[in-house]
Amino acid sequence: MADALVLQSDFGVADGAVSAMYGVALSVSPTLRICDLTHEIPQYDIWEASYRLIQTVSYWPEGTVFVSVVDPGVGSARRSIVAKTANGRYVVTPDNGTLTHVKRMIGLSEVRVIDEGVNRLAGSSESYTFFGRDVYVYTGARLAAGVIDVAGVGPEVAPESVIELPIVDAMFDGESVHGTIDVLDVRFGSLWTNIPRELFAKLGVGYGQRVEVTIENGTRMLYKNFLTFARSFADVYVGEPLVYSNSLDCMAVAINQGSFAKAYGIGTGVNWKISLRKAPRLVYE
Amino acid sequence: MADALVLQSDFGVADGAVSAMYGVALSVSPTLRICDLTHEIPQYDIWEASYRLIQTVSYWPEGTVFVSVVDPGVGSARRSIVAKTANGRYVVTPDNGTLTHVKRMIGLSEVRVIDEGVNRLAGSSESYTFFGRDVYVYTGARLAAGVIDVAGVGPEVAPESVIELPIVDAMFDGESVHGTIDVLDVRFGSLWTNIPRELFAKLGVGYGQRVEVTIENGTRMLYKNFLTFARSFADVYVGEPLVYSNSLDCMAVAINQGSFAKAYGIGTGVNWKISLRKAPRLVYE
Amino acid sequence: MADALVLQSDFGVADGAVSAMYGVALSVSPTLRICDLTHEIPQYDIWEASYRLIQTVSYWPEGTVFVSVVDPGVGSARRSIVAKTANGRYVVTPDNGTLTHVKRMIGLSEVRVIDEGVNRLAGSSESYTFFGRDVYVYTGARLAAGVIDVAGVGPEVAPESVIELPIVDAMFDGESVHGTIDVLDVRFGSLWTNIPRELFAKLGVGYGQRVEVTIENGTRMLYKNFLTFARSFADVYVGEPLVYSNSLDCMAVAINQGSFAKAYGIGTGVNWKISLRKAPRLVYE
Repeated sequence: MADALVLQSDFGVADGAVSAMYGVALSVSPTLRICDLTHEIPQYDIWEASYRLIQTVSYWPEGTVFVSVVDPGVGSARRSIVAKTANGRYVVTPDNGTLTHVKRMIGLSEVRVIDEGVNRLAGSSESYTFFGRDVYVYTGARLAAGVIDVAGVGPEVAPESVIELPIVDAMFDGESVHGTIDVLDVRFGSLWTNIPRELFAKLGVGYGQRVEVTIENGTRMLYKNFLTFARSFADVYVGEPLVYSNSLDCMAVAINQGSFAKAYGIGTGVNWKISLRKAPRLVYE
Repeated sequence: MADALVLQSDFGVADGAVSAMYGVALSVSPTLRICDLTHEIPQYDIWEASYRLIQTVSYWPEGTVFVSVVDPGVGSARRSIVAKTANGRYVVTPDNGTLTHVKRMIGLSEVRVIDEGVNRLAGSSESYTFFGRDVYVYTGARLAAGVIDVAGVGPEVAPESVIELPIVDAMFDGESVHGTIDVLDVRFGSLWTNIPRELFAKLGVGYGQRVEVTIENGTRMLYKNFLTFARSFADVYVGEPLVYSNSLDCMAVAINQGSFAKAYGIGTGVNWKISLRKAPRLVYE
Repeated sequence: MADALVLQSDFGVADGAVSAMYGVALSVSPTLRICDLTHEIPQYDIWEASYRLIQTVSYWPEGTVFVSVVDPGVGSARRSIVAKTANGRYVVTPDNGTLTHVKRMIGLSEVRVIDEGVNRLAGSSESYTFFGRDVYVYTGARLAAGVIDVAGVGPEVAPESVIELPIVDAMFDGESVHGTIDVLDVRFGSLWTNIPRELFAKLGVGYGQRVEVTIENGTRMLYKNFLTFARSFADVYVGEPLVYSNSLDCMAVAINQGSFAKAYGIGTGVNWKISLRKAPRLVYE
């Protein structure tokens, strides 16, 4: 049976671009299963494309082929590649940093540069602006359908050569854990950090206990408060902020039924730093 | 052949949450057919989730499994259930009122509480915030794929115990029909009421005749006018308001190619009351 | 194997309308493959519906059945038709101009008026507002699944009788090519014109050379400048405007990583005229 083909892009679904990609894939193999990751990646936001991949790749069956097209350099000399992850999924993408998180957190076992002499939709050679349709989804569909194997993609290159965006690792200094705000849970306004639950565990804070949360952007402090470390939203009052471990097993900060990001004007990226430490005991005298 | 799995949530599709749910379902059974109801339910709006189910459930084949995740109480003591409808569809949902309309208008023939000891994605027990992925879609996929039957969900409970949101029934007082504005047709700005076409028929108003429409919010009257009862939008001028029976066989109010809701600032819920009566004969003297 | 069914509408996906259509199609045949073109067509915008069809139809396999429901005249006397394209795809649609581009650029080989006595969802005859669900998708699903052949749709009519919106053809006057701005690439703000690459080629402008671009709305000139004719966005600086041939093989104008439409307030339609000519040689004296 053919493997699933999962599409991600910054195209939106308001015009026909995504549908043309579906059509090309089904023209390769009419029985292919095609699904979406998302097409709402903010335009040209390679970081978020990378993050959405790490958020989902491992939940799909082995052999699944992801096609991610967030490609500010379309038509430039950037490589077009297919990467096999260490846990057996494939990602077809421009080599522009889209694989940053997958490379670091899962690992890449094999990488091939797409040979466009072979893996390009027939008749499309005069169009230089829709690689997503003409090269990426076409190659991904052929791979998912078994028309080609991974060697049929093109020449092999070293996984180490795959481009990564700069990442700051979370660290524990013996007293606090320090990390960055990687991404927002768009609809609910929660902050997702790069601090793994295991690292946070070194603080020795149990469910129901309090955490001191500090958020800084560059040199400006934007937030400092004591929050409950909760198993889930229902453990705090509506409107109360909380610290919890999110669905990626990293630490997150939210307001129950409110938007933390909007309430305090919080953004994302390596300049948005967050620190967590065990809250002090409050002694009233 | 496996039954279809249909997903609804308030997650939006901008991040990877829905895609992770798809991946989990396909990991249960790679041949499962998965579709969406909508993921644009306003955050935490259980009423609208309930309404969208009644709007669609009966149009899908018997055996279809719906998974609805609008869950402001995620992680609380609210039950997670699977309900079998009287017409043979299944709904997997937190028991928080999401089944209000389906229970009242179709009926529930069997209800089971999900046994999370059995029906929970392996390795997910430390995450308490994504029940949609770890419990609901996992259970729904197993049911749709035939891995478990409904008895395999968990212990049976009485259908009567399923939580309902308060609903005000439409009524006929011998002169007018009175109801509430249940929901908006989001994109076209029409008002959908809870007044069934059969109840409206007691007014004896034929197509092309006029109806007196009164809309009140609490004690404030917001709208009173004589409108044509039309078979469809094309029976009135562009810009003209009309009364018609909608695709759920209930009475609705709209402006042809305009937005009634925006024009008069109309909202939804049990405080938004609407009355319809046969328009008086106009006599000029 | 059944052919694919591809849905387009102006319904959005926030309520249950599209999902009800999916359910009806799967009730016709549970193994049908159903996909979306888009449901974000601006309300009642027949022109854009027509354009999105021409943008995608030919990328789908022969035999694919498209259902397009942008229907400001729902319930009026407008015909409901199924058109077979000259390259073997089908489009189910109200006959209101939705087939304008497909008829002109691909051609129609056979057209049938839907016989609603046969091709209408059972039990739906009292609802006059959701033809998309009750007639169009039902008929499309039966056709895609092979329950009916094209003759089973209803009586044949002349392809010439299919309604077209007014279109102005691009032309070359020996010096400049003149056309209109047909549509925007919604998310990226590029202008897509009706000027085919072959017509533009008569100007004898090579990649990297400059083009004089003039944009007028009625009698107002909105833009006049010299732009690079680029193979793709990567051939110009970030923020630099360019002329290129788009994924439909027509000429387009954009700003690399910016929005040309927003920058200059450009709209679409037959009043938005664009002219391209070879830029003059600049001589500094």
